[in-house]
Amino acid sequence: MATQKTAAMIVIGNEILSGRTQDKNINYVANALSEKGVNLREVRIVPDIEVEIIDAARAMSAKYDYVFTSGGIGPTHDDITAACIAKAFDRELETNKEAYAILEAHYGVDEFTPARQRMTKMPVGAALIPNPVSGAPGFVIENVHVMAGVPRIMQAMMDDVAANIQGGDVVHSLTVACPLMESVIAQGLGDIQDQYTDIDIGSYPQFRDGVLSVNVVLRGTDQDKLKIVADEVQSLIDALVAT
Amino acid sequence: MATQKTAAMIVIGNEILSGRTQDKNINYVANALSEKGVNLREVRIVPDIEVEIIDAARAMSAKYDYVFTSGGIGPTHDDITAACIAKAFDRELETNKEAYAILEAHYGVDEFTPARQRMTKMPVGAALIPNPVSGAPGFVIENVHVMAGVPRIMQAMMDDVAANIQGGDVVHSLTVACPLMESVIAQGLGDIQDQYTDIDIGSYPQFRDGVLSVNVVLRGTDQDKLKIVADEVQSLIDALVAT
Repeated sequence: MATQKTAAMIVIGNEILSGRTQDKNINYVANALSEKGVNLREVRIVPDIEVEIIDAARAMSAKYDYVFTSGGIGPTHDDITAACIAKAFDRELETNKEAYAILEAHYGVDEFTPARQRMTKMPVGAALIPNPVSGAPGFVIENVHVMAGVPRIMQAMMDDVAANIQGGDVVHSLTVACPLMESVIAQGLGDIQDQYTDIDIGSYPQFRDGVLSVNVVLRGTDQDKLKIVADEVQSLIDALVAT
Repeated sequence: MATQKTAAMIVIGNEILSGRTQDKNINYVANALSEKGVNLREVRIVPDIEVEIIDAARAMSAKYDYVFTSGGIGPTHDDITAACIAKAFDRELETNKEAYAILEAHYGVDEFTPARQRMTKMPVGAALIPNPVSGAPGFVIENVHVMAGVPRIMQAMMDDVAANIQGGDVVHSLTVACPLMESVIAQGLGDIQDQYTDIDIGSYPQFRDGVLSVNVVLRGTDQDKLKIVADEVQSLIDALVAT
């Protein structure tokens, strides 16, 4: 039986919810986790509001093996993630000495202003996530990984985290392109799904040049079985195209 | 005092969570709602798992004025949204006569197969959302708007929904570009935020050509006040650039 770790992501950002910014972090985290055999089971995008961040962090931390957050760890008044995560786990917010040393070296003593020192405030017991791009580290508390929102920084942090967390069996996927409409293959595809309960068969329609077609995506940990099911799906499609 | 409606979006899709597909619907819905004065307060991306969809639908429906879902209303075995929404509101799933008539006319009697008829199954009491792209309608039950996942179809449905829902005061935004790092403006920006509690001041760093800069985004319903605050932020930045 395949073993899989589960995960959730919390995106903290008014700018995604207002429509001003298109999120770029979810897909990166999703792919990084897939490669590690970690099953991203839920994503929540929440505003920069304390109670919403706390509620989401508690709920996701209790439900899944890992939680990843992005956004809200900078030096400005709207960066409230560290304080919220501390409250979510009933921990004091303190100056993290290791983060303080890193940022003091990064900016120099004279330029290490109170605003920059704000980025060293973390819950008691936090372990740092290095930030090779701009200095200010993220952190881990319990099973929650707190990362930056700027995509390039978040990606560097995620790469570091992904290299260090325990994964599971990697879920592989095979895609079978289908020129027919979803409604034509639906019955046969359902029959194949019923036969192979450990392969997840998804049907994803797309609209291109005025024509609906479908990608049938098969996912599972057993690559041999994936190929067998893919052959069955291909045979189904070929038979339907021929009629 | 500004009046605002609130909303949540539920994206149903294993393919987003696996990283195979980059979501394109959230940003469209976010912008459509912003233009109507509806405040998108939360987004949840959940897998094609019955209990997850039901739990999310109930929680979001109770908490916000409107809920929008995308995905899972096609003809295949993995399209379970309509059945889940029916269960979420303790309603029977029935053949919606209006949807049946639309799809029978769309496909023709001979081609209106059982798989296609599956797309007419909706909770009792559903009102239809037209689908000008591919026929099969979405639907509204209580405050939940159930839409397709294919972006072009979802967008057409969302346009129809947005034209018909009651909005509120539109939140306008002004962006002030700042060449300085976030940590340089943090103190002054916080002071300005403290003065104007009905303007939401967000600070969004970006990394471009190896340099971190910031967009300061001001949001509020009062455009005159927005301009006053934007001038203050610009003066702050000018003064800091000059030092």
